[in-house]
Amino acid sequence: MLSSLVRAGSGTGRLRPRHDPSIAERIAASAATTTGAALRTEDFPQWLEGRRRAHRFTVDRIPFRELDGWSFDDTNGNLVHRSGRFFSVEGLHVTRDEGPHREWYQPIIKQPEVGILGILVKEFDGVLHFLMQAKMEPGNRNLLQLSPTVQATRSNYTKVHKGADVKYIEYFTRPGRGRIIADALQSEHGSWFFHKSNRNMIVEAVGDVPLDDDFCWLTLGQIGELLHRDNVVNMDSRTVLACAPFPDDGGDALLSDTELVSWFTAERSRHEVRAERIPLRELPDWVRGESTIDQEQGRYFRVVAVSVEAGSREVTGWTQPLFEPLGLGVTAFLTRRIGGVPHVLVHARVEGGFLDTVELGPTVQYTPDNYGHLTGEDRPPFLDLVLGADPARIIYEAVHSEEGGRFLNAESRYLLVEADDEQAPLDPPAGFQWVTPAQLTSLVRHGHYVNVQARTLLACLNARAVRS
Amino acid sequence: MLSSLVRAGSGTGRLRPRHDPSIAERIAASAATTTGAALRTEDFPQWLEGRRRAHRFTVDRIPFRELDGWSFDDTNGNLVHRSGRFFSVEGLHVTRDEGPHREWYQPIIKQPEVGILGILVKEFDGVLHFLMQAKMEPGNRNLLQLSPTVQATRSNYTKVHKGADVKYIEYFTRPGRGRIIADALQSEHGSWFFHKSNRNMIVEAVGDVPLDDDFCWLTLGQIGELLHRDNVVNMDSRTVLACAPFPDDGGDALLSDTELVSWFTAERSRHEVRAERIPLRELPDWVRGESTIDQEQGRYFRVVAVSVEAGSREVTGWTQPLFEPLGLGVTAFLTRRIGGVPHVLVHARVEGGFLDTVELGPTVQYTPDNYGHLTGEDRPPFLDLVLGADPARIIYEAVHSEEGGRFLNAESRYLLVEADDEQAPLDPPAGFQWVTPAQLTSLVRHGHYVNVQARTLLACLNARAVRS
Repeated sequence: MLSSLVRAGSGTGRLRPRHDPSIAERIAASAATTTGAALRTEDFPQWLEGRRRAHRFTVDRIPFRELDGWSFDDTNGNLVHRSGRFFSVEGLHVTRDEGPHREWYQPIIKQPEVGILGILVKEFDGVLHFLMQAKMEPGNRNLLQLSPTVQATRSNYTKVHKGADVKYIEYFTRPGRGRIIADALQSEHGSWFFHKSNRNMIVEAVGDVPLDDDFCWLTLGQIGELLHRDNVVNMDSRTVLACAPFPDDGGDALLSDTELVSWFTAERSRHEVRAERIPLRELPDWVRGESTIDQEQGRYFRVVAVSVEAGSREVTGWTQPLFEPLGLGVTAFLTRRIGGVPHVLVHARVEGGFLDTVELGPTVQYTPDNYGHLTGEDRPPFLDLVLGADPARIIYEAVHSEEGGRFLNAESRYLLVEADDEQAPLDPPAGFQWVTPAQLTSLVRHGHYVNVQARTLLACLNARAVRS
Repeated sequence: MLSSLVRAGSGTGRLRPRHDPSIAERIAASAATTTGAALRTEDFPQWLEGRRRAHRFTVDRIPFRELDGWSFDDTNGNLVHRSGRFFSVEGLHVTRDEGPHREWYQPIIKQPEVGILGILVKEFDGVLHFLMQAKMEPGNRNLLQLSPTVQATRSNYTKVHKGADVKYIEYFTRPGRGRIIADALQSEHGSWFFHKSNRNMIVEAVGDVPLDDDFCWLTLGQIGELLHRDNVVNMDSRTVLACAPFPDDGGDALLSDTELVSWFTAERSRHEVRAERIPLRELPDWVRGESTIDQEQGRYFRVVAVSVEAGSREVTGWTQPLFEPLGLGVTAFLTRRIGGVPHVLVHARVEGGFLDTVELGPTVQYTPDNYGHLTGEDRPPFLDLVLGADPARIIYEAVHSEEGGRFLNAESRYLLVEADDEQAPLDPPAGFQWVTPAQLTSLVRHGHYVNVQARTLLACLNARAVRS
């Protein structure tokens, strides 16, 4: 009915397609390209070693009393920074209605600020390249790993610690500097963080991008190769990469998307989980010493303190608390082809620090040392299957570190393990469900569906799918 | 590579399409049908009146001391039920970083249980009909309104109050009794509830469905007509109807879906909101009397108590607290055609009780009486535009009640108002954005994007779109 003149006058020129399939095609093309226009993959170790030599880093364990700016609050015993910012270590009391552990107390990191984890991308020779950073994090065993372009808490980029500017941050905070490819609030470790989420962003740069020291351009195919090496691609990179909108052919799956969301909704509704913060000093079962806060039976993790001397971070030296998990974790998806279509077995996991009850995690996500005392039905499902997997059925395996800015030597063996119907039936136990990688990719467009460990495995799945 | 035999053996027969477009077509066909196979719309008032006569209801205000099973807790003054279930009235302390109100205290309803709001649907004469219930809620001025098939807290359907079974509940709790059309956890009033969400479900029945008293089958077109009448379709119905997967042509919009989600993510990240529960007795500015808890200046709402005598609910009589808002609310979307495509102006609203900072609300959602003292920049944006709208630009208007099980006489005038570029520019103020109804429909597939008032307006938009 409207004339074209009226249409133009009311903003036709500003309309755009709601969905642009070319982005997924370009992501896939980058993933299929293992020869970068800048750094060659075989030269990467040398480049990383060069960055390591260019800065000196020392990380030492210290007693809590040597923390600078951090102290145990007089009233509640919480470990806090004098600025009131960064994060604090508090207590958590969790009760739930099923499972072998129905009530527990633990220290938890409270960090209410939403940070930005962002990767800047740009085409070189017609292929998208990702701007990655060699970044030191005190908790990583090898200190330097490959991180996103930007990995900044709000305190970082609003300069609460009066350090240097965060490089490239303007592409993620100022509209118009780039084109958004992915942007969602994603949870972090619900066992160690209370309601923590970060903004995971992929932005395509408009115009030239100056290349800073410590940064390099890599294709997604190159990063996929690096994901097969131990402790190279850091957690923040992995979670952002999991948000890359890989092509989705919309094909068949065991459950329709509506059934999958309904199953997830039912899982969220059926659990009664109460997680209440309490003063750190009122935690039963945990003991505070000079240098550590330990669980009485020596399980799970401890709270420690470190001092850092470094030249490449936003500030030149600092002290901070870290959580140090005990033992190497095992994090795995069981995979099956169902009717020829690859599926993975997700687990609707309760973690005390999740914003909302459950998120979809890997089939197996445990530190075996903590579960040695459990037997029979109390033993985590599928854990023994993964631990004893025939090497021929392991289609992906690498050790990766969790967030080295908060966790010390927090490493897990990430695996993709093929299973058969006897080991993992199509009708799995309550709380488990078969989904396709494309369904997971569609869910990570939104926050709080897929937990951080499952996002690492999704990034590895996508990397592997392109290689194989 | 796999033979068809192996494929069958690995579950081919169980695969299904991830997306079934026929459901949206059948929803649209039901919305376009205003002549039902069962009850005629013109006979509906008489039917509802018949249900009203079939039961006797009396709701009386009582002093708090006459509440049965409810009392003010000795230690914190919270208003609680002796079973520890249902809900409690506690205190909330909210601080935020912008706006005219940066800190406030208020009573809040804490109801951690996830309830089910479910509508059962079934084809008659080839058209989907929705099974609706004439249900009494003590807070509704006219007591009896049209509710979903099932409207049950977990206490209801697990029979904490030892009443009758919840009719038709098995279609929503037992897989296989129906086919899921929609299922998501949606928030309720963030100004009055702390972290409350309900499961919103639409399920298509498999097999015959016996018709109980107090229930009737209506097409979506018939319900759309009833949505144009004051106080007929209750809030629980409206929020479930908003989740109906109307057809989405995937056409153009002012923002692509990725840009829209990114804008929303930025809005969630940019607000610093702290909402901490505190003891009800420690609330400044609120005064507890014999029969009411009032804000000192007589604004916002009061907490009251009622006794109910009824014949048609799960139990025959009870007493309970209710929140009674002061004044008639105004809840409106401004609408514009942009390039010929209808858009509405959403507002990323901070409400203290939201699980996560902000959700998308209507352009205007205020009780004008509460804002009479604010002027200039502190005046809520677009409120005066809606209050003074030319009747010719009002394309939808009706008064609806909020949840009558928790709120007393909580009514709001819901409006859709056409605006022009001068009144509502394409580049709106911070916190506002233009979206299409189809984009909102795609977001309500997931929880915590669209608030309950915007969902009512979305249901009205979809109803209107079909009529016009």
